[in-house]
Amino acid sequence: MKNLPVFLMGCGGVGRQLLQHIVSCRSLHAKQGVHLRVVGVCDSKYLVVVADVLTAELDDSFLLEVCRVKSNGSSLQTLANSGVCQVFSGPEVLQKVVDIGRLGKSTGLAFVDCSASAETIGVLNQVVDFGCCVVLANKKPLTVPMEDYDKLVSQPRRLRHESTVGAGLPVIASLNRIISSGDPVYRIIGSLSGTLGYVMSEVEDGKPLSQVVNAAKSLGYTEPDPRDDLGGMDVARKALILARLLGRRLNLDNMKIESLYPEEMGPGVMPLEDFLVNGLPLLDQKIEDRIKQASANGNVLRYVCLIDDARCEVGIQEVPKDSALGRLRGSDNVVEIYSRCYEKQPLVIQGAGAGNDTTAAGVLADILDIQDLFP
Amino acid sequence: MKNLPVFLMGCGGVGRQLLQHIVSCRSLHAKQGVHLRVVGVCDSKYLVVVADVLTAELDDSFLLEVCRVKSNGSSLQTLANSGVCQVFSGPEVLQKVVDIGRLGKSTGLAFVDCSASAETIGVLNQVVDFGCCVVLANKKPLTVPMEDYDKLVSQPRRLRHESTVGAGLPVIASLNRIISSGDPVYRIIGSLSGTLGYVMSEVEDGKPLSQVVNAAKSLGYTEPDPRDDLGGMDVARKALILARLLGRRLNLDNMKIESLYPEEMGPGVMPLEDFLVNGLPLLDQKIEDRIKQASANGNVLRYVCLIDDARCEVGIQEVPKDSALGRLRGSDNVVEIYSRCYEKQPLVIQGAGAGNDTTAAGVLADILDIQDLFP
Repeated sequence: MKNLPVFLMGCGGVGRQLLQHIVSCRSLHAKQGVHLRVVGVCDSKYLVVVADVLTAELDDSFLLEVCRVKSNGSSLQTLANSGVCQVFSGPEVLQKVVDIGRLGKSTGLAFVDCSASAETIGVLNQVVDFGCCVVLANKKPLTVPMEDYDKLVSQPRRLRHESTVGAGLPVIASLNRIISSGDPVYRIIGSLSGTLGYVMSEVEDGKPLSQVVNAAKSLGYTEPDPRDDLGGMDVARKALILARLLGRRLNLDNMKIESLYPEEMGPGVMPLEDFLVNGLPLLDQKIEDRIKQASANGNVLRYVCLIDDARCEVGIQEVPKDSALGRLRGSDNVVEIYSRCYEKQPLVIQGAGAGNDTTAAGVLADILDIQDLFP
Repeated sequence: MKNLPVFLMGCGGVGRQLLQHIVSCRSLHAKQGVHLRVVGVCDSKYLVVVADVLTAELDDSFLLEVCRVKSNGSSLQTLANSGVCQVFSGPEVLQKVVDIGRLGKSTGLAFVDCSASAETIGVLNQVVDFGCCVVLANKKPLTVPMEDYDKLVSQPRRLRHESTVGAGLPVIASLNRIISSGDPVYRIIGSLSGTLGYVMSEVEDGKPLSQVVNAAKSLGYTEPDPRDDLGGMDVARKALILARLLGRRLNLDNMKIESLYPEEMGPGVMPLEDFLVNGLPLLDQKIEDRIKQASANGNVLRYVCLIDDARCEVGIQEVPKDSALGRLRGSDNVVEIYSRCYEKQPLVIQGAGAGNDTTAAGVLADILDIQDLFP
């Protein structure tokens, strides 16, 4: 049985779901000859770790207790009395996490980042140096300035990040296969936000933007402040991740990012309620006009990422009605990849591109996939 | 630089394209720290191999010469005078090929089968025992009786066969990710024959089946005898490969396979010309009636593989007009996978599912993917 140690940063929805998947897949993974030995978990405040990271593990009932504690909104510190782990807090956390990373070279530690933090890149780059494998659901470490990015990807086979684009959809795995087979990618165009996909297909049906966004918010489809979706930054990060995979040396601030609201309606300027009630309706007419114009061209509007030789941008584009993108309804993600092998008709990957279950499944598949590096 | 030995069985269109891809990807692979060292190639008659398989390789100009010779319809034997290789023929080929396989354990040999032969399973199972990695574009070794199949897949991480289903489309890679993440697959439905996909979308437009098949044959879309496509056996093999990945212990003869022509029009009974001119038109009315019936139900007809808990079958099915399958036009392949993570809306993978370029690209990505097994 291959014994693969795992360390998890981030105990939000995705991290907790990952722990649950690991527990529920025990017999499946045993059949595949693999045992995932979780040596520790941390959030932004506390680190919970076994006393002997070389041999011990947090057992399944403890992992489920971590999930229970965190989903109750309690602190990891409450686990200190269990007697099966050490708990660290404050500035000690960072130092201890790096110490765990020192295991990497000898044991094949999978260092998993399911946080949404912009602050993990420093630790990640240290553990990469130690020979750890890094698995990311967190997009932010991949959208840092190029210098830090280059360090993070310096051992490309030891880095996996399927769930950073389209959740568990096999976008990164497929793109990496295309790249390693020498098939040149000419163009990637995709709808990579379930929220914006939903919004664009609803306004296409004639509903005013303001009504659609308010409804999406009530349905829980948007971030608490929908401007976090409408601003396009999340899609821009995904686009940048794809573009960098293709070898483009870009930063977020080189990219054209279209926001669906103007600066004067931004979070720092206009309170949320004001935006929802008074701001949004001012945007209805312009979108309606653009939809009519697109329709007159036989097209529909989609909020897409678009990467080709000349461009890496996100925003509203006209796309053919009968393309995979144009036919997209609801909150599915879709990516079209054009290459020498997929020249006239693209390679299309489509499906649910959000959700803790799917995202954590993508992370788990990544962890299983690096087992080959440790014979 | 990682030095990965490769041995190729089969110098048809896919095998030759693979050699060309290997040659043209030299600098790309060097950037990735990998060198593919081709130690030998064989077809059904001859084996061409370097004298010292442990260290030597067939150089790029020789590999291109192999391609030239074989695409001219000449024999590999003509390369015997080059002085850079040994050439074997007759019963010696098999023994020498197995000897090359003995390298597997120590060197991480990728043993690649790009033939279309049903006879390679014996050799493959021997080299699997030696610890070789096996990469298949050939479907037949995966559709042998279960006992031989079990041997072939006994080291699952050392077996890759992306190009056996949907050519280079990332169907197998995606399905393996879903499986290893513990996401239970409820249903797979797909159009996995470019030829039958084309035929079904043309008859949907009101053209008679006989006219569509004859046109497809003229366009080179079908096998020389279109009954090789219309019989469904090629799709059945792909369905069986997917079902077995899901753990179903089935054989080809357990499967329901619908043929588009009746037994009395089979290749052993009716000459090809007779079938094309007199046989096919007799089938037009029935298909037309079925299309009308489907249309009355709001559906369209597709020739699909269908795998769920109860079924593993191939044949004509009614599918919703507005599903990925129902919208399929032309010769693209499409696969819809339903699972816990993709429950209401499936994971959809769509694109060109045939062609030597795409198929060989899938094989090459597989070869690159097993590099992690050899540190």
